[in-house]
Amino acid sequence: MPVVTAPERRYVITFGCPDRTGIIARISGFLAEHGGWIVEAAYHTDPDTGWFFTRQVVRAGSLPFDADELRARFGEVAADLSAESSWEVSDTGERRRAVVLVSKAGHCLYDLLGRVASGELDVDIAAVIGNHESLADITRAHGIPFHHVPFPAGDKAAAFEEVRKLVGEHDPHAVVLARFMQILPADLCREWAGRAINIHHSFLPSFIGAKPYHQAHTRGVKLVGATCHYVTADLDAGPIIDQDVIRVDHGDSVEDMVRKGRDIEKVTLARGLRWHLENRVLVHGNRTVVF
Amino acid sequence: MPVVTAPERRYVITFGCPDRTGIIARISGFLAEHGGWIVEAAYHTDPDTGWFFTRQVVRAGSLPFDADELRARFGEVAADLSAESSWEVSDTGERRRAVVLVSKAGHCLYDLLGRVASGELDVDIAAVIGNHESLADITRAHGIPFHHVPFPAGDKAAAFEEVRKLVGEHDPHAVVLARFMQILPADLCREWAGRAINIHHSFLPSFIGAKPYHQAHTRGVKLVGATCHYVTADLDAGPIIDQDVIRVDHGDSVEDMVRKGRDIEKVTLARGLRWHLENRVLVHGNRTVVF
Amino acid sequence: MPVVTAPERRYVITFGCPDRTGIIARISGFLAEHGGWIVEAAYHTDPDTGWFFTRQVVRAGSLPFDADELRARFGEVAADLSAESSWEVSDTGERRRAVVLVSKAGHCLYDLLGRVASGELDVDIAAVIGNHESLADITRAHGIPFHHVPFPAGDKAAAFEEVRKLVGEHDPHAVVLARFMQILPADLCREWAGRAINIHHSFLPSFIGAKPYHQAHTRGVKLVGATCHYVTADLDAGPIIDQDVIRVDHGDSVEDMVRKGRDIEKVTLARGLRWHLENRVLVHGNRTVVF
Amino acid sequence: MPVVTAPERRYVITFGCPDRTGIIARISGFLAEHGGWIVEAAYHTDPDTGWFFTRQVVRAGSLPFDADELRARFGEVAADLSAESSWEVSDTGERRRAVVLVSKAGHCLYDLLGRVASGELDVDIAAVIGNHESLADITRAHGIPFHHVPFPAGDKAAAFEEVRKLVGEHDPHAVVLARFMQILPADLCREWAGRAINIHHSFLPSFIGAKPYHQAHTRGVKLVGATCHYVTADLDAGPIIDQDVIRVDHGDSVEDMVRKGRDIEKVTLARGLRWHLENRVLVHGNRTVVF
Repeated sequence: MPVVTAPERRYVITFGCPDRTGIIARISGFLAEHGGWIVEAAYHTDPDTGWFFTRQVVRAGSLPFDADELRARFGEVAADLSAESSWEVSDTGERRRAVVLVSKAGHCLYDLLGRVASGELDVDIAAVIGNHESLADITRAHGIPFHHVPFPAGDKAAAFEEVRKLVGEHDPHAVVLARFMQILPADLCREWAGRAINIHHSFLPSFIGAKPYHQAHTRGVKLVGATCHYVTADLDAGPIIDQDVIRVDHGDSVEDMVRKGRDIEKVTLARGLRWHLENRVLVHGNRTVVF
Repeated sequence: MPVVTAPERRYVITFGCPDRTGIIARISGFLAEHGGWIVEAAYHTDPDTGWFFTRQVVRAGSLPFDADELRARFGEVAADLSAESSWEVSDTGERRRAVVLVSKAGHCLYDLLGRVASGELDVDIAAVIGNHESLADITRAHGIPFHHVPFPAGDKAAAFEEVRKLVGEHDPHAVVLARFMQILPADLCREWAGRAINIHHSFLPSFIGAKPYHQAHTRGVKLVGATCHYVTADLDAGPIIDQDVIRVDHGDSVEDMVRKGRDIEKVTLARGLRWHLENRVLVHGNRTVVF
Repeated sequence: MPVVTAPERRYVITFGCPDRTGIIARISGFLAEHGGWIVEAAYHTDPDTGWFFTRQVVRAGSLPFDADELRARFGEVAADLSAESSWEVSDTGERRRAVVLVSKAGHCLYDLLGRVASGELDVDIAAVIGNHESLADITRAHGIPFHHVPFPAGDKAAAFEEVRKLVGEHDPHAVVLARFMQILPADLCREWAGRAINIHHSFLPSFIGAKPYHQAHTRGVKLVGATCHYVTADLDAGPIIDQDVIRVDHGDSVEDMVRKGRDIEKVTLARGLRWHLENRVLVHGNRTVVF
Repeated sequence: MPVVTAPERRYVITFGCPDRTGIIARISGFLAEHGGWIVEAAYHTDPDTGWFFTRQVVRAGSLPFDADELRARFGEVAADLSAESSWEVSDTGERRRAVVLVSKAGHCLYDLLGRVASGELDVDIAAVIGNHESLADITRAHGIPFHHVPFPAGDKAAAFEEVRKLVGEHDPHAVVLARFMQILPADLCREWAGRAINIHHSFLPSFIGAKPYHQAHTRGVKLVGATCHYVTADLDAGPIIDQDVIRVDHGDSVEDMVRKGRDIEKVTLARGLRWHLENRVLVHGNRTVVF
């Protein structure tokens, strides 16, 4: 096990409200009043909707109260600024948990396991659930439980229900669809809203749905892409967290595209997941603000 | 005027035929027999269609005959290999000509003019045709004729006919739609087939048609793209020559995307045009082989 | 001339001071007190030096006073926070001016002229100074004065003195070395400190000095780069504003590298210049913070 | 274990000789004479040295003889063309073997193991040798022997001798220094010449030697890089196989650079290793031709 120095404990405030003058002054004034030491701050105003966003990171030790009291007190600031429910205070002292859903393709899972094992991605993978058993051994070699839930062609509802229960047992901060290949039913999309993260193997909105590399090959594109996005009931149309592309040419077969594309799938998923776990991603309609 | 050393004269053979053994031996044997010094050679076989492609560049001075005789003699080789009409011999000693079609947006035209003036892009821009007059002065400052052809909303047929005639006077190797913004009628697509090159301001097949940056902004993508492709009667669906992307984020307005995208539009168009003029692009169905 | 809507007038505050609690509250509190509407805000703390940086953009019309009074009043805030002289208030209503120094290679100049002419880069190019006359015509075609200052091999001091005077007449916000190819003497580096921007045709610190593409070719690198940086008396070692790279391979001659590299030189210089003119670049020792 | 269809068996000819007319005709004529079906062919001439390079891939089943007889017969062709020893015939039917050297940092090893396990990288990892034990468990979980060879500060010669023996037992096609962190002695560099592949965590020739990310941070670069190269006795100066970069900014600490850089280290090493194992890399002086 690598020795990784625990980073200093921090509170992360994510916040949105209608834009007006004085918002930053109000929030930073509140924090300054209590001695809050801001170590990271980012702002954005969406001119189309007139909505203001911010993410503030404060040293936990600089404030005279704990996360719950910060929530209670900051709630008054939020109310003054008409933020309603669009704000959150998270505590980096609370360990992050993720559940990963997989099928047969292992590249994204291998990558996530390697990042966690080497201390690079700061999350507990509570469980891996697969509709095939191919990835059971590597998962267990990392000391992580693997659940095999078969998805029979004609009767997927029971399988999804089992997945729902298994996931629910861990109440994870993220449900990661690491090339899971099954389309989530609408009720699961709702239940996991804002937590279910998918990696789609194309540069969305190009090549939605099945076999995007085949579609890309047929169209003769010169770059293939990967898109990390939140899952919604509308297939491959949820808010995009990150995207990347890699160059291909006429010499690349579909299999070559699949292989090259894996490298950006892995990296794009890992980056999106990190940002999600660090509360850097604020969803606004069907778009994201990534601080 | 910059002094640019004229590159050595060369013949460029582009060739396609059904794949079988002995093609390279036949072509290179023919060239070797006559002392042909090959300075560049590239091959590709498309496994889906079983079609073989090659591009060979030979020093003109190493062969004992001129381009016409090379064509005549190579024609026998091509016939033996069942290439039918899918081959061509071009002569770099024959100066390349292009006609550029523009509207109001000048970034691609400025870029092309700069590349030609600095000797970087080896082509004569025979004329620029605009449906607005905005770019007349800069064109003429480069000593190039500018033709203003207005496109009245209700009656574009006559305008297209005038463009057709103006272009035809120069018999250009390339008709460059440098953000021309008018959809070519099917007959012009046919007449200019394999010569009309468009730059579309998105990563096709995403965001076909009008206002792609607005579409991209609405979808919340994290990269915007540009696609250089041959024009066909099917809007924005012709064979892709090259594509590129640039990163954007939530802070970028549509106007920012437009501005950032211009940099890849310019570069992608210039690259695609150069490859076309150097006979590096072989069209195969709706895809391209770029040697 | 393209019609470009004038953007709304704004004040841009750039600011640095020793980090402590309450800085953001103090600055945003000051602005809020006077009704200042912040449209853009960015923060950074350098953990190595404990230095805090911010850039705030305020709608000019939202404040009840002009830029000079804002400077006077903000000076008190700055003094309270021990910022000493490391802050500035600029006014987007004041037109930006640049002087461009060139030699024979025109690609960066063509690019800048095109960006200015198309309204994309919001600056007046007050003059272009060249040690050769090659770029005089294109400069004058854009209605910009061109000054030819020859640099005789044995006696460059007089030439630099003339350049110094010509530049000084315009008191420009930026002196752009657009592939100028002459090494500035130390006194000019001092006089233009923080305003002289160079584009070096390599990925610094690789390949400092002359003929970087030749050096890159000899080393057999697989990417070539460009670096936009502030000029200091230490050759090619000033604070880096931006860098970019482009892929090359074994088939690329030095001339091909030169050609491919031009595309990133142009873009990287234009991007760095834009950021400089928008007061996005804060220099901190030999590094930059780019907001 | 994933089921991966074995690709068709092929012979790969890599070849270099002084450039002249008729080389391609001679080689392809030889192959055609025996019915050889070429599935991939690439050519390059280095104008500086007048050296010609080619790589030809032939379906094994299309030739009437085995690899050894192909070698014997092709030897005559090579002799005619004065290729001397600069040619090789390899057989994809012969399984590739690699030995991986590691230290504590696991990201490159995790990545390689994942690629091999998922059938993406077609090689047997015969052994992993580490100067620490940190990566023993994950290696063994993949069914691969792990050898711990401590490197005491004062006496590394014995350790290198043990590594030399362990590696020698497997006679591997590649010795992969996957962030091994020990400088190979000159005699090992000679013994493994053309087979030892290192990943250096910078864009060489920038930041040679120790702690390149620290060097990069101090210089304030805007991109960090990774370089995959053959190991020679001259530190970090061997022939470059591939390089890549990733963007960083002022907000990135050294630790952030380390983390971001890992993603390109992994990908660049895996790509370079693949090319090496597929005999795509021809070394020419201190540069490489990558077909």
